[in-house]
Amino acid sequence: MQILSRDRIVQAVQLDQHAMAAVEAGFAALGRGDVTQPPIMSLDIAEANGEVDIKTAYIKGQAHFAIKISSGFFDNPALGLSSLNGLMIVMSAKTGVVEAVLLDEGYLTDIRTALAGGIAARCLSNEDSHRVTLIGAGLQAELQLAALLLVRSIDKVAVWARDTDKARIFTERLAKKYSLDVVVHEDIKTACQNADIIVTTTPAREPLLTAEDLPEGVHVTAMGSDSPYKRELNTSVLERANRVVVDTRSQSELNGELKAFKGQGLSFDVPELGKILTGQEYGRVRRDEITVCDLTGTGVQDTAIAAYALHALSTSEA
Amino acid sequence: MQILSRDRIVQAVQLDQHAMAAVEAGFAALGRGDVTQPPIMSLDIAEANGEVDIKTAYIKGQAHFAIKISSGFFDNPALGLSSLNGLMIVMSAKTGVVEAVLLDEGYLTDIRTALAGGIAARCLSNEDSHRVTLIGAGLQAELQLAALLLVRSIDKVAVWARDTDKARIFTERLAKKYSLDVVVHEDIKTACQNADIIVTTTPAREPLLTAEDLPEGVHVTAMGSDSPYKRELNTSVLERANRVVVDTRSQSELNGELKAFKGQGLSFDVPELGKILTGQEYGRVRRDEITVCDLTGTGVQDTAIAAYALHALSTSEA
Repeated sequence: MQILSRDRIVQAVQLDQHAMAAVEAGFAALGRGDVTQPPIMSLDIAEANGEVDIKTAYIKGQAHFAIKISSGFFDNPALGLSSLNGLMIVMSAKTGVVEAVLLDEGYLTDIRTALAGGIAARCLSNEDSHRVTLIGAGLQAELQLAALLLVRSIDKVAVWARDTDKARIFTERLAKKYSLDVVVHEDIKTACQNADIIVTTTPAREPLLTAEDLPEGVHVTAMGSDSPYKRELNTSVLERANRVVVDTRSQSELNGELKAFKGQGLSFDVPELGKILTGQEYGRVRRDEITVCDLTGTGVQDTAIAAYALHALSTSEA
Repeated sequence: MQILSRDRIVQAVQLDQHAMAAVEAGFAALGRGDVTQPPIMSLDIAEANGEVDIKTAYIKGQAHFAIKISSGFFDNPALGLSSLNGLMIVMSAKTGVVEAVLLDEGYLTDIRTALAGGIAARCLSNEDSHRVTLIGAGLQAELQLAALLLVRSIDKVAVWARDTDKARIFTERLAKKYSLDVVVHEDIKTACQNADIIVTTTPAREPLLTAEDLPEGVHVTAMGSDSPYKRELNTSVLERANRVVVDTRSQSELNGELKAFKGQGLSFDVPELGKILTGQEYGRVRRDEITVCDLTGTGVQDTAIAAYALHALSTSEA
């Protein structure tokens, strides 16, 4: 059994086309019905303002599957610790023997989450999309941008975040690091007005984005909402969209943006991303359509990135 | 972060009164409502005849909680591997930081499962119980006996197992190891006829024990059934019993013996073991009553034994 540190994993796994192909293959397997993916297990520890989520999935025919444990303890920064933490256990799908413990401290989750955003944009945004608006100024906002750079020729970035000072620092850093035209905005509507792609990456509990903020032809990826308490999109965004796509329907209804429609019938179809990847459902059909993809984070992404990491690590050792 | 091998864990944690007290405290906390225990997460891998269960629980006020991953891959013996496997991840309940990975390969599960049987018998069997019948001749049958020896002055053991040859070898070994009068039987009814305590420890899919097999005053612990497909007790056993107790009601209904009554109203109360430990519910009230305890295995036992193991390991190092 291998026990692998974050440093070794970071060396072997990058936010690149290879990792994207692995995560995309996972979504496609989900679309084909070749994945067993139980509901997320959640443990709340209210006294410590903490929560733990456990995700897993088995992809038919794959030699390994992962069990991903991720924690968020939101009083940690006051103790000088990161709020987010996590590890993955990789088991043989033939024997159940533990093959590896990936002590990635959430790194692989960050990567596979960003890659899903890239995959969604490649599937749903117009091919010549070059202007991105980031709602949120955290690590995942940057990684979403990095993933978009893998699939579209981005040259302009607009940023809005609740904390404008944080947004400014983030903007300056991004402009330098990626040699891009990055501008900070003080309201969401202005930030979005020329966007080809909008990515929401916040832990908001009240919707931030409304239908009025959406320019014609835009694609929106909402990746922040991942619990019954979080929401980023006003229902008008989903009602206005020509196409709403989710990573996993049941998770979106429980933890994602579809929960806003709980108890109501939906007036629109909601295909899963994997079914678009496999051609069973269509995505965008016209330039001027508005598309939305709600990502809640799935066990199949974890199994896909963990299996890829094991492979990449074995290659990097050779 | 500590990574602890099975050998070190076996050195530090034994099937004894100390470990029993830890597991009992976990059940009592559950009884008081001081435990958050999400439903079990299960992943089936049918192609490999395998399954993985994930259990967790947070006990209010405890510094640590565990996430236990256990696998059963039933084609493993043909590959020279054990069917059962597992590990526990111990996290800080204050920060979510991983404190330890216990590579116990299922040892702590075996121990906490046996201890629950001991606790159930201490709560529910007559105090002068000395004759035990074991249904099943596997590792857990032996451990259940060992746990009973901690709480009752056992001197006679009767054994029945589907495979009579296996039962004979088991019986001989038990007699020698524990210096007890151990007799093998070829039918369940004869094996049970003088029992004060019966423990069923099989992976049976059809009920083995019926009401006719039960002598007056007996206590029955059924610990084999832990999935929607397994059952050890005929419904007549539960209907005949004066008191039916479970470790966790929702789990017994899904994976344990209560699932036989699914869709029917129960004609009897079913308190949880923890509520008897805390005096909120009564257990046995007369010598001649028949009591039953259905154990499905709970996350709170895992967290209790893992926290105990960490403590015992730190003491044994000092």
